[in-house]
Amino acid sequence: MTDSAPQPATRFAAATYADRLARAARLAADAGLDALVIGTGPDLQYLTGSRAHSFERLTAIVVPASGAPATVVVPRLELASLRDSAIAELGLRVLDWVDGVDPHGLVTDIVAEAMGDGTGAPAIAVDPALPALHVVPLAGRIGAPARLATPVLRELRMIKDAEEVEALRRAGAAIDRVHARMGEWLKAGRTERQAAEDIAAAIVEEGHTEPEFIIVGSGPHGADPHHEVSDRVLAAGDVVVIDIGGPVEPGYNSDSTRTYCIGEPDPEIARRYALLEAAQEAARRQARPGVTAESVDAAARDELARHGLADAFVHRTGHGIGLSVHEEPYIVAGNAELLRPGMAFSIEPGIYFQGEWGARIEDIVVVTDDGCEPLNTRPRALGILSAH
Amino acid sequence: MTDSAPQPATRFAAATYADRLARAARLAADAGLDALVIGTGPDLQYLTGSRAHSFERLTAIVVPASGAPATVVVPRLELASLRDSAIAELGLRVLDWVDGVDPHGLVTDIVAEAMGDGTGAPAIAVDPALPALHVVPLAGRIGAPARLATPVLRELRMIKDAEEVEALRRAGAAIDRVHARMGEWLKAGRTERQAAEDIAAAIVEEGHTEPEFIIVGSGPHGADPHHEVSDRVLAAGDVVVIDIGGPVEPGYNSDSTRTYCIGEPDPEIARRYALLEAAQEAARRQARPGVTAESVDAAARDELARHGLADAFVHRTGHGIGLSVHEEPYIVAGNAELLRPGMAFSIEPGIYFQGEWGARIEDIVVVTDDGCEPLNTRPRALGILSAH
Repeated sequence: MTDSAPQPATRFAAATYADRLARAARLAADAGLDALVIGTGPDLQYLTGSRAHSFERLTAIVVPASGAPATVVVPRLELASLRDSAIAELGLRVLDWVDGVDPHGLVTDIVAEAMGDGTGAPAIAVDPALPALHVVPLAGRIGAPARLATPVLRELRMIKDAEEVEALRRAGAAIDRVHARMGEWLKAGRTERQAAEDIAAAIVEEGHTEPEFIIVGSGPHGADPHHEVSDRVLAAGDVVVIDIGGPVEPGYNSDSTRTYCIGEPDPEIARRYALLEAAQEAARRQARPGVTAESVDAAARDELARHGLADAFVHRTGHGIGLSVHEEPYIVAGNAELLRPGMAFSIEPGIYFQGEWGARIEDIVVVTDDGCEPLNTRPRALGILSAH
Repeated sequence: MTDSAPQPATRFAAATYADRLARAARLAADAGLDALVIGTGPDLQYLTGSRAHSFERLTAIVVPASGAPATVVVPRLELASLRDSAIAELGLRVLDWVDGVDPHGLVTDIVAEAMGDGTGAPAIAVDPALPALHVVPLAGRIGAPARLATPVLRELRMIKDAEEVEALRRAGAAIDRVHARMGEWLKAGRTERQAAEDIAAAIVEEGHTEPEFIIVGSGPHGADPHHEVSDRVLAAGDVVVIDIGGPVEPGYNSDSTRTYCIGEPDPEIARRYALLEAAQEAARRQARPGVTAESVDAAARDELARHGLADAFVHRTGHGIGLSVHEEPYIVAGNAELLRPGMAFSIEPGIYFQGEWGARIEDIVVVTDDGCEPLNTRPRALGILSAH
């Protein structure tokens, strides 16, 4: 980081967070909850702009469903971690605590205070990332099981506002610029790891804060959807799956996969790849307001099944994306959630042939009023690269 | 990584994990539990050597207290993530599941099967890192609150065996070699960030897998114990807190703090620093079998209090260390745990003067039969560095 270049804003204006907190309280009330307890992670970042992280010492925001102001509980030692958030600007109450104090008791006291004279155990919901370390003692303190705040938070986070879509669009364009340079790095004789190092540098050069994940799955490694990198040496004729992404400020992620071939592909590979391309396109065509998430999954899956490739597609079609790389809505069988404008998710069918090769095509799309906008626009055909 | 250099082993022999799993089952039975459910993270690594990580898709080992063999639940997509662990060699059952299946139901089925004809809700305990995303549905499935596996796991992980102590000793020596080179990087005119980049490279050069954390707290930044790095420019006369560490194979962490001065220190700084040195030594002298963890904290705290510096020491004296940088036992007021041979933890009192400067001295020690062995042996005096 240099002092001379203007740095992109690391959070939105405080009013954005005030609005989100108010909506979270209303949704919590609608869900019959007394309070939300949100620890560090993407939900806290969504609600306050804070990127604080902590583990064994509890940092959390308590959002009463009553509409009473939210309170932040934070170890005194980590007070500075809230500095870049909107918490001070919003005038939220901050209760700092020191080693030796029971922070879970602090949280339940705050909830009790917001409820007034309570009648029984309060209903609290916690964020999905809160570790058991805090979930279990909180449940013990309130004398009732904790619930998940997911139904409340997903309702907020799942629908991206214009600023969020703009951030995702910038992230998509940045990762597309990295894919555009892939011919510089994928060459016969180089290892997956060498290619990954170059890709990591380019991810930052093209505007990401950091590389979040890099999959270079060459030859038989491409058949493992979660293969990362190895010292395997690329060879002419290899099919190579490149699945890469990372955050751009203020924290929104890119995630795009393209599949390349070093030199000309075997005709049978080209034939099957074309079927994958059609499946990915079918899913993109299906993605629009009013259809279910699972129907998008089915669109890709049915297309592959029609051509005998059902067994080759071993994972869901996609996942939501935003402050987290994986979030709601999941594009998977069994998810009857109806798509709405502002939802952003990946469409990434793949075909995998154990011991041989694999391929995947992944775009992030945002649901619009009458369809979806792909945020990744690089050609989806198998990318033929010169072997040397 | 080069192919020519021999790589250090990334886990212990399978027999080590067989023994740990058997002891975990016995301790779970002693605690009145029916099963442990351990997700990805340091506890899974401790029990199986696996470094798998996952979030929204559950990967977990179910360890029945009955002594029935443990079962691993894993998304089919992430089966390969178990490859480097001892799971196959130990012949553990592996149940893979695909998107659309309820993995929490799988876990409760495994527990029910191990219990035979159940009489009521099973008592399960989960690892402290398991996210609420899994804790809440598991508790719902069993119809009873989940408990924390911490009392079982801490009993195992807190007492390091000879192989673990050897790994911690190597980690300590590696970070000491980094501190020995500090004069190369801390110079007037350079920024904290520039120094941190050099330190990060040296942490890897000296044998760590990666830098896990780097604090360069110069001048007034040293007064924030959790300050990381900034673009502040170092100046002659600055006191600089350097708190650094990272893992060495097979995953054990270093963590050591030394405080430096660029040029000669102000006499009042030197006077107070000497009191901190005495406090750190008092705590090291106190650490031996049979005394409480809190008595070690008190030894450092009382020494500072005697000289009017009680308010300057704003955090606990230490934390256990091993596969996690922070783990049991915590060296903090209120922890009456009796120290035993094989416990490894930091002793790191600090003094902090807001807006001015701070200092901290941190060693990792291992409790021996009659005292403790410091794994960091660099001089503890304020490190006077040449200003240019």
